[in-house]
Amino acid sequence: MRDLLPPESRARRKVSEQLQSAFERYGYDLVTTPLFEQVEVFERGLTLDPRDLLRFIEPDSGEVSALRPDITPQIARVVATRLADYPPPFRLRYEGTVIRRRRGRARRQRQLAQVGVELIGISGIEADVEIIRLMAEACSAAGLAEFRIELSDVGVARSLLREHAPELLGQAALALARKDETQLSAILSQAGLASHERARITALAHLHGDLSVLDEAEQIVRGTDAAFHVDNLRALADQLVAAGLGGRLGVDLGEIRGSGYYTGVSFALYAPGPGEAVASGGRYDQLLGQYGAPQPATGGGIDIENLLSALDAAGFAWRERDKVRWLVAGSGKELDEVARTLRAAGFAAATLLDGDASAAQSYASAWGYDAVVLVAATGPLAVVRGDGTRRELAPELASNDFDALSSWARSPSSKE
Amino acid sequence: MRDLLPPESRARRKVSEQLQSAFERYGYDLVTTPLFEQVEVFERGLTLDPRDLLRFIEPDSGEVSALRPDITPQIARVVATRLADYPPPFRLRYEGTVIRRRRGRARRQRQLAQVGVELIGISGIEADVEIIRLMAEACSAAGLAEFRIELSDVGVARSLLREHAPELLGQAALALARKDETQLSAILSQAGLASHERARITALAHLHGDLSVLDEAEQIVRGTDAAFHVDNLRALADQLVAAGLGGRLGVDLGEIRGSGYYTGVSFALYAPGPGEAVASGGRYDQLLGQYGAPQPATGGGIDIENLLSALDAAGFAWRERDKVRWLVAGSGKELDEVARTLRAAGFAAATLLDGDASAAQSYASAWGYDAVVLVAATGPLAVVRGDGTRRELAPELASNDFDALSSWARSPSSKE
Repeated sequence: MRDLLPPESRARRKVSEQLQSAFERYGYDLVTTPLFEQVEVFERGLTLDPRDLLRFIEPDSGEVSALRPDITPQIARVVATRLADYPPPFRLRYEGTVIRRRRGRARRQRQLAQVGVELIGISGIEADVEIIRLMAEACSAAGLAEFRIELSDVGVARSLLREHAPELLGQAALALARKDETQLSAILSQAGLASHERARITALAHLHGDLSVLDEAEQIVRGTDAAFHVDNLRALADQLVAAGLGGRLGVDLGEIRGSGYYTGVSFALYAPGPGEAVASGGRYDQLLGQYGAPQPATGGGIDIENLLSALDAAGFAWRERDKVRWLVAGSGKELDEVARTLRAAGFAAATLLDGDASAAQSYASAWGYDAVVLVAATGPLAVVRGDGTRRELAPELASNDFDALSSWARSPSSKE
Repeated sequence: MRDLLPPESRARRKVSEQLQSAFERYGYDLVTTPLFEQVEVFERGLTLDPRDLLRFIEPDSGEVSALRPDITPQIARVVATRLADYPPPFRLRYEGTVIRRRRGRARRQRQLAQVGVELIGISGIEADVEIIRLMAEACSAAGLAEFRIELSDVGVARSLLREHAPELLGQAALALARKDETQLSAILSQAGLASHERARITALAHLHGDLSVLDEAEQIVRGTDAAFHVDNLRALADQLVAAGLGGRLGVDLGEIRGSGYYTGVSFALYAPGPGEAVASGGRYDQLLGQYGAPQPATGGGIDIENLLSALDAAGFAWRERDKVRWLVAGSGKELDEVARTLRAAGFAAATLLDGDASAAQSYASAWGYDAVVLVAATGPLAVVRGDGTRRELAPELASNDFDALSSWARSPSSKE
């Protein structure tokens, strides 16, 4: 709910463009859905706390609408309605703001910038592999060099719990997510589970780490319904290793909360900085059925703010501008002329009327201009960069002389 | 409040990027403001019908918020608060969705995609010239070849009306906008205006057309407070002519409605197609004072949907994609390999597992792929483009062979 000022705002847009461009390379087509719509659309698709929806009554129709907390249910609605005649698989991408309640002390709304992809109509693991590869490739394209991807499958814990203590799924999930084995064990005891059954479930709390966790998991779930899910996860991990992502992979079988609509494999992409996942997603084979077009689906989304925070922590220079920016200061008709020449040469240029050298320099430094071109009635006089160094110019200066001047202007001391 | 499917959605994003890039060349820096905020922010800055704000009560704080109907008041708030220490002039750009009630029969909300610029801190006409030139340049950059710009100054009619019939400003403005001289004259008679005073005001209703209208206006307003505004408009027109926009300019002195905060020169950019302005804006010298930082300001915004509609009417091929898109169909490990090679070569590529030639072709045609690469276990077999023409491929095909194939793939018959 905050304003984003120039450096962050610009960086967010650029990162968003780089991510979208990666999605486009994989054939994903952009869909734009409304910021709010009838509350029923979200209630059908989500298993979230109803208090977490920000609702209002539309003054004319009297309909109850909600600001979207998530874009995936809207995409499901579009696929089931306006795109119903298109052949599967559906490869769709989106970007937009979602409104979520902030958990914890102050439960205020947050506006999150999200981009994501959905791959709808393929039940096989190859769809999950594509989504996870694409998330990794997109984050790399945006400049994120170091990250890890934790794989999970909500089916492992759900199968074990459902078999023995379906009514405890919610409580147990929370204890599991906290890796609180003592509490988990107490919950399962109360439910009357035998000690070997309890052991199987509490073991999930430490089944997180590198891919060797899968070996351990296979032992533990042998002979249960959960075995299928562990095998599935193994197949996913194998294909991701073959795709060159081996060094980044981890497993966390205790993570079974996440978005309520996940039904199978899921993932979260982490990097130092934001303190929560940069990207996450998973399989949601039941969601499309809620909108009348049952089919398997998987997808993933990236939280732009978390990605920027991770880029920041990695020392990535996202504040830097692509274009050299010139401030053209002085007076007379030449001012506009010089600015126009600079723009035509591919630079950014703004004018400052009647600005003397020192006013122009402090203006340039406040607003992130690389250098000042001082202009008189006779034409350009001199160029002054951020550190105060000055170069006199010949009045007959040609436009392409600025190509040479631009790298000089971007000395380390003149950067924004 | 509608979904945008792939061709429109993609085009809207591309156009928005082209506009932003033009704004950036002029030194405008991006600011992002929230989708909704306390209703008071909007009420301070706008003179709109209070019923036109879409309000809701934030569940936790109990504060009344509104979805933004306009971004300019938010920019004014940011300039007066978080940017208060920056030196003027402020050159800021924005993009975002605004929520407006649809006027007329069905008063439902519309979500409009807007981009715009604000130039704050300059009272001189050179700021208005910069904004109008930038609007024209941005629309041209997005592909709009034919458009006209109608200049106005709300001060002309307001001065004449204020002098004689301030209480009738609202009613008279409506009659003026409709060019309804009879109704206008009746309203002014009732207010007891003398016939030569009435004549001056009703004359405004036909003061629209090319720049020669300004000559006529000068005669009519001579000796009144409105003369200053006509002179101002003349100075603006002269500078825009000097900047090469002469052939596109018109004047409409009857247009005094617009956003309630305009105080001086205003403009609207029209092109065939949308039936309303593609871009509009004007000077709003009183708005910043409402937020505690009084200073002159001018700005302009572009309605993306109207711009797309104008591009459509002009036959601009905005549905066409920049990148050639390949659908890689078949089976086996080679499928991924070929797709990856194509992406690395700068194309978009998606896979279709187990798709035979005919299934792949109808899939490609439905989803806008330029051509299909059929792949077998031995490697790529053939390329089939939209019109069914097929080219066999050598299995040892190199990745750069696709550069040559891509222009062949984009035959007129294979376009989306």
